Amino acid sequence: MGNTFGHLFRITTFGESHGGGVGVVIDGCPPRLEISVEEIQAELNRRRPGQSKITTPRNEADQCEILSGMMDGKTTGTPIALLVRNKDQRSQDYDEMAVKYRPSHADATYDEKYGIRSWQGGGRSSARETIGRVAAGAIAKKILHQVAGVEIIGYVKRIKDLEGVVDPETVTLEQVESNIVRCPDSNAADRMIDLIEQVRKEGDSIGGVVECVARQVPKSLGMPVFDKLEADLAKGVMSLPASKGFEIGSGFAGTLLTGSEHNDEFYTDENGNIRTVTNRSGGVQGGISNGENIIIRVAFKPTATIRKEQNTVTNEGEAVTLAAKGRHDPCVLPRAVPMVEAMVALVLCDHLLRHQGQCGVL
Amino acid sequence: MGNTFGHLFRITTFGESHGGGVGVVIDGCPPRLEISVEEIQAELNRRRPGQSKITTPRNEADQCEILSGMMDGKTTGTPIALLVRNKDQRSQDYDEMAVKYRPSHADATYDEKYGIRSWQGGGRSSARETIGRVAAGAIAKKILHQVAGVEIIGYVKRIKDLEGVVDPETVTLEQVESNIVRCPDSNAADRMIDLIEQVRKEGDSIGGVVECVARQVPKSLGMPVFDKLEADLAKGVMSLPASKGFEIGSGFAGTLLTGSEHNDEFYTDENGNIRTVTNRSGGVQGGISNGENIIIRVAFKPTATIRKEQNTVTNEGEAVTLAAKGRHDPCVLPRAVPMVEAMVALVLCDHLLRHQGQCGVL
Amino acid sequence: MGNTFGHLFRITTFGESHGGGVGVVIDGCPPRLEISVEEIQAELNRRRPGQSKITTPRNEADQCEILSGMMDGKTTGTPIALLVRNKDQRSQDYDEMAVKYRPSHADATYDEKYGIRSWQGGGRSSARETIGRVAAGAIAKKILHQVAGVEIIGYVKRIKDLEGVVDPETVTLEQVESNIVRCPDSNAADRMIDLIEQVRKEGDSIGGVVECVARQVPKSLGMPVFDKLEADLAKGVMSLPASKGFEIGSGFAGTLLTGSEHNDEFYTDENGNIRTVTNRSGGVQGGISNGENIIIRVAFKPTATIRKEQNTVTNEGEAVTLAAKGRHDPCVLPRAVPMVEAMVALVLCDHLLRHQGQCGVL
Amino acid sequence: MGNTFGHLFRITTFGESHGGGVGVVIDGCPPRLEISVEEIQAELNRRRPGQSKITTPRNEADQCEILSGMMDGKTTGTPIALLVRNKDQRSQDYDEMAVKYRPSHADATYDEKYGIRSWQGGGRSSARETIGRVAAGAIAKKILHQVAGVEIIGYVKRIKDLEGVVDPETVTLEQVESNIVRCPDSNAADRMIDLIEQVRKEGDSIGGVVECVARQVPKSLGMPVFDKLEADLAKGVMSLPASKGFEIGSGFAGTLLTGSEHNDEFYTDENGNIRTVTNRSGGVQGGISNGENIIIRVAFKPTATIRKEQNTVTNEGEAVTLAAKGRHDPCVLPRAVPMVEAMVALVLCDHLLRHQGQCGVL
Repeated sequence: MGNTFGHLFRITTFGESHGGGVGVVIDGCPPRLEISVEEIQAELNRRRPGQSKITTPRNEADQCEILSGMMDGKTTGTPIALLVRNKDQRSQDYDEMAVKYRPSHADATYDEKYGIRSWQGGGRSSARETIGRVAAGAIAKKILHQVAGVEIIGYVKRIKDLEGVVDPETVTLEQVESNIVRCPDSNAADRMIDLIEQVRKEGDSIGGVVECVARQVPKSLGMPVFDKLEADLAKGVMSLPASKGFEIGSGFAGTLLTGSEHNDEFYTDENGNIRTVTNRSGGVQGGISNGENIIIRVAFKPTATIRKEQNTVTNEGEAVTLAAKGRHDPCVLPRAVPMVEAMVALVLCDHLLRHQGQCGVL
Repeated sequence: MGNTFGHLFRITTFGESHGGGVGVVIDGCPPRLEISVEEIQAELNRRRPGQSKITTPRNEADQCEILSGMMDGKTTGTPIALLVRNKDQRSQDYDEMAVKYRPSHADATYDEKYGIRSWQGGGRSSARETIGRVAAGAIAKKILHQVAGVEIIGYVKRIKDLEGVVDPETVTLEQVESNIVRCPDSNAADRMIDLIEQVRKEGDSIGGVVECVARQVPKSLGMPVFDKLEADLAKGVMSLPASKGFEIGSGFAGTLLTGSEHNDEFYTDENGNIRTVTNRSGGVQGGISNGENIIIRVAFKPTATIRKEQNTVTNEGEAVTLAAKGRHDPCVLPRAVPMVEAMVALVLCDHLLRHQGQCGVL
Repeated sequence: MGNTFGHLFRITTFGESHGGGVGVVIDGCPPRLEISVEEIQAELNRRRPGQSKITTPRNEADQCEILSGMMDGKTTGTPIALLVRNKDQRSQDYDEMAVKYRPSHADATYDEKYGIRSWQGGGRSSARETIGRVAAGAIAKKILHQVAGVEIIGYVKRIKDLEGVVDPETVTLEQVESNIVRCPDSNAADRMIDLIEQVRKEGDSIGGVVECVARQVPKSLGMPVFDKLEADLAKGVMSLPASKGFEIGSGFAGTLLTGSEHNDEFYTDENGNIRTVTNRSGGVQGGISNGENIIIRVAFKPTATIRKEQNTVTNEGEAVTLAAKGRHDPCVLPRAVPMVEAMVALVLCDHLLRHQGQCGVL
Repeated sequence: MGNTFGHLFRITTFGESHGGGVGVVIDGCPPRLEISVEEIQAELNRRRPGQSKITTPRNEADQCEILSGMMDGKTTGTPIALLVRNKDQRSQDYDEMAVKYRPSHADATYDEKYGIRSWQGGGRSSARETIGRVAAGAIAKKILHQVAGVEIIGYVKRIKDLEGVVDPETVTLEQVESNIVRCPDSNAADRMIDLIEQVRKEGDSIGGVVECVARQVPKSLGMPVFDKLEADLAKGVMSLPASKGFEIGSGFAGTLLTGSEHNDEFYTDENGNIRTVTNRSGGVQGGISNGENIIIRVAFKPTATIRKEQNTVTNEGEAVTLAAKGRHDPCVLPRAVPMVEAMVALVLCDHLLRHQGQCGVL
């Protein structure tokens, strides 16, 4: 358990940083969806290492193979298995980390929990695990777009204390992809890139905030009580490596307002649709989408693995210092953008099917 | 679906604000746990309405009946069903809200999703639903305490912009319960209470932040990938009514640090235990508890239902104004404290059993 | 775990033979279904003890209370909780069985597994647990009937070696209910009743076979691989107390034919529907319903609890004899009929929603 | 959904007869289990086609690759992904069956349900899907053997009307594997082989019964109510292709006895263990294992795909005849033996972990 996400549109990921490869099995995909390996690959390319000077130089093409579940370019309704082989592995970089625990990394807790650990490249705790999520997210996005024209756009909102100005109502994928840090505010983006390069040179790392908007989301996705849409979104993104916080709509800042300031008043638009004047709810009320834009933010901590020397202990508890070798991202944010989008897509797609299941028969 | 939480220690809640009652079925509880209805009731009393001048005056004793799953004061390993009858119902207060949608409430989305709605008292979206969670949480707390001495203590950290100074290492339940707003910083508490009373008089509402610490948590709870401990904690508390944000450890503030500033260096303590010098991780690394204190924060928005007049629409889309009648909390925070504790307890207890299941056989 | 059944239309039962009562929470029911407590009660009355001279004389009205999930006689899409109080309890009948294990009963295995046991009336292993299933089944039946006119009719096919002649194509509920043993072949029924009465007098018990047909089942219910329709039907009925075997269509007898004898040839009927000439498949091919009648059979062993003296041991392993007191069914078959129907309805309804969820969006 | 089995020891299979391959992801495997690819391969070899003159001549080595979840020959507690490439594919054999529905096969129902179908080799309905089950079953068997010395031995009990005499108490794997039909009664085996060869020559097929015993099973596996051990066993084996019936212990024959004849009397053995004199219960009472041998039987129908000409229709409903090309098993029983064993192992292993999870903490 623990490697499966979703109920009706359900994914199971597998694989480690080093070894045979990583992948995903997608179960419950609606049949007859047209999707090509190139469409999936396009999302994987946004996630892959070595894509720019501010990401890890590990050079993986992350070429995706579809093992099952497709026929003549269409889904068949049976499990879609996707496999990406590991190629550019350098186990020797991890020799030292086989015994020395990286501070704030999963090394120690994996060892404690399982008594064994695939230590090369972080094993299962490696961000390579998210390949399966991003690939599955590409399929979920396509379904959502086809059914309702849903657009899911993530972007870097803040790197350390450098914040971009972005309008979630109008931001486009092109704007996001126009620079390597994936911040649509190009002025801020330049400064962010400079900062990341500087931090990398220092052998250190930084974090920040990814914001993600989902537009054209159908009403009625999400469920009362435990499977509220925001609860499932929170779980989805908080399961990404390095995430430390989640907000929807007004989030923590909303707690500074009074109810009369915070509430989203209703009105009826020219087409007779019930809408809200403001959107502090972030597109979800009572756990259920209301048709307004869904807006979330995710905090990502600075990368744990750094070249700077740190105090730590070995797996036998001996005090040592560690200056990590290997190829690591000085900042995960640019590559986290497609991961956040994927989790949002997976949650929305699952709830689309669940809503159809419960409410589409009578 | 959507009304069940947990895998091995699994709860299913039922019931609406008005009607036969609310309750919970707890499946998977370990056998032979000694627990009395009084212990469960004690937690319910911390959650119940009418407990102080700053909560809703709806007067419910919330007396809990154990329907099944117990024998001679001990759990039997079979489902524990708990029922609380609704008593102090005033449906007539909701007559107007049967047709007028409360801004930022679940009225409109429930109507849209299901085409029918139990409108009295908010029906299933009422905070009364959390009775089942708090009752189940009392049992989860007892298990955790018995197995490992776990202490779970929540408290109000901030009301609007009034923030208390609290040390999660040392805060006690007695300090939390020493005032009606449940902020262990008594100076801040006084100001918080004044502010809530003032806001109530204005017919408005306010929100804030609950912090919760879990101490003496065993190592190894939580799982890699989707069921990371922080992901399940996020889902748990983000499924509470009115929650808008979640943080663990350093949270959003941690994104302002560099990796070398943020990382928790390891050391070996006098007993040979591997510990961390700092705890920006909030007790979880790689999704798995590391034995340090688990610390989370939850943002709660100002209560949606207010007496102040607001613009809204009817269920037929007609523009109207609404000044909500009924008895509502001007601030949910004091009563949210036991709810947050309950969700933390449920997540930890479920992961305790899951860890035992996977790793306890070989 | 273990007390929940179904994925989208999901039930959780609770309660023991003695104590507060038994019941069920139904999660995922489609909204706006009209159903009355009387309709549910009608099914419970077919299951209740004391209904005739050949069932246990324990006299329970099994009056059902709807605690939640309904509004103005319609389902709301939120959990429906149903409660039946225990009334006619005689704990003293079980004093001896608190320490003496009934052969072939759950007493010993519950004690071993949990180290504690609600011994009055069999506790959780009592057939009273099936009240929740039958109540939920009544709702599932109504949905299936409303959506597609599905008819689910169970009946006693055989008692010990007395077999009835029944045509599943045409059998009616009225025929089933025309006698107290629920065998539509009235000649066989008379002999069955005589045999049960005779066995009861001897302090012994007997078993037999229930057959159940589901007519007008929509095509496409069920899924490839693990959640084949026949697999879920098998699980459903094999979870009923006292069941020892399951068959669908030709079942064990079908293994005596060759493929050319056994295969159901296809033809196109006057309405252009693809049908099968024969129905040895029992309405399911490749795990998916094909629109033909679904026909299953379930073997129920003779009731374990008998008045005849038997050798056994106490919970401390001491050899003793036991002649069971209490009020027990000499033959569970007549009351098992509505239980089997309920499980079939629950499986079909769940798969109806699941199919709609996966295949109804694109 | 539908391609996952188990709760704590959970498998998800993927793949079709033709295409990239078939495989399985095993989630929840206990860490530090030593297992080699050869041990898994040994079970796959018992299942593979082309193993003898009485199975399909399709020649697949079914060589298994471990993609993840292992380190230094031990499981790591993370998902184990296993992949078997398809090699000996002959799509052209299925050209005719792309449009003509095979009687009693999944062709028609898949087409109806999904509106698309991977028709080569039966696609997802092919018995190749069971490769993943058998591979996962090898791991489950190893766990069960290591924890408690469990032995799971399946064998052919009956082919059409030819029944072998086998003692489940003493039968060995060597006896089962001593002939190609996997019936430990060598006299019966010879006649069975002759019959299968004759039927093959006639272009027809036959079915039969597989019996499976699990010895040394720990007490306390299985749960009251829905997840009774026999219910999960029934679901497991009834999800195998071509299965039509399931029995445990006395099964259907047990319905011919009275309670006093059928009940398994208890006694205390020389070691102080509570045992039963007889074992009509088949090792399970009240849904929970009692430590006696678990004995089940599964009915497999004659293979649907035969060379003999049959009446059928095309996917457009046109009446045609079909004499199936391709390479098919005249009798699935010999290859079904390891499949049944695998499902029994998967169910027992999952319940072993679940029992440990609920009952191993207090």
